[in-house]
Amino acid sequence: MGGPEIERLIALLSRLPGYGPRSARRAALTLLRQPQTRLLPLADAMEQAARSVRSCSTCGNLDSRDPCSICADPGRDRSIVCVVEGVGDLWALERAGVHRGLYHVLGGTLSPLGGTGPDDLSTRPLLVRLEEGGVREVILALGATVEGATTTHWLADRLSGFPVTVSRVGQGVPMGGALDVLDDGTLAAALLARRS
Amino acid sequence: MGGPEIERLIALLSRLPGYGPRSARRAALTLLRQPQTRLLPLADAMEQAARSVRSCSTCGNLDSRDPCSICADPGRDRSIVCVVEGVGDLWALERAGVHRGLYHVLGGTLSPLGGTGPDDLSTRPLLVRLEEGGVREVILALGATVEGATTTHWLADRLSGFPVTVSRVGQGVPMGGALDVLDDGTLAAALLARRS
Repeated sequence: MGGPEIERLIALLSRLPGYGPRSARRAALTLLRQPQTRLLPLADAMEQAARSVRSCSTCGNLDSRDPCSICADPGRDRSIVCVVEGVGDLWALERAGVHRGLYHVLGGTLSPLGGTGPDDLSTRPLLVRLEEGGVREVILALGATVEGATTTHWLADRLSGFPVTVSRVGQGVPMGGALDVLDDGTLAAALLARRS
Repeated sequence: MGGPEIERLIALLSRLPGYGPRSARRAALTLLRQPQTRLLPLADAMEQAARSVRSCSTCGNLDSRDPCSICADPGRDRSIVCVVEGVGDLWALERAGVHRGLYHVLGGTLSPLGGTGPDDLSTRPLLVRLEEGGVREVILALGATVEGATTTHWLADRLSGFPVTVSRVGQGVPMGGALDVLDDGTLAAALLARRS
């Protein structure tokens, strides 16, 4: 059907998140209709990104610079480090614009079933950063899942020997959320986290 | 957020069919995690496709060869030409394996509201093929929409001067379809197309 180039394009497009064979065919057709204005620019953007983007050697963020633009930004508060599971979480916090300190990307959460143990997480570089001094507070911003909670407890324990305040993100009713659709765990957490 | 390369990659990914900013960020992260095994192969497949894939000068199909692999296949019945709206329709018929003749891609349907007139469709090359002789039947396989029906009628009229049988695809109850969920138009067409 159209030669090996089209077959290969569809096969690789169908592995994109949220895509299957049908949507991959549709995307291939859309792109092939405008090779100069859509297909080649996307191919070029992918190649540029693959060649230039690296993990930041300090925090694990993805950037075309190392250290990344957040670690290199003199305007950020270097005394607060926010620990996140992945780069996607870091992007979400940056879009919200609610954290003015630095980050540390853990690269996952402890998951015995998923085969992720302490050695698979980027904890050693975090401890090195704390040993170097200058950090006053570590915010653990992991997901409110079983794995996230386990990792938060384990990490809080590992950080207890350092002269830093260890906090974790609050849990409760999300903004815009109605109480009657929330699960029991969230309602319990919201009641526990009540403020006068 | 990660430098201009990542921003550009996300911006272009978000223009893929079915994608938005959120899914584009997710796809960018997935691809950037495996630059060598996922990002570069996809970039390469896109570039190869953009450089090699052309519209077939005979039928309008997309292929890396010209004439396309269907027009060049000596095993196909050259006396039957199936007229379709786009390459996606041609692909669907090929996957079904129900047509052993050749194709002609019209490139659209007549749509006064959408600004598509007779001159925007690839009808002249079809007439040239018929003038060259050898074609016995033209199957009009356009969609059962208002535009498709209009184009079918208009095209059947234009082809009436040629010594070819002009047929159009049957309309009725789709395979696996229950009658009570079908619209009135489909039910009417199915009754009209009844066979004893």
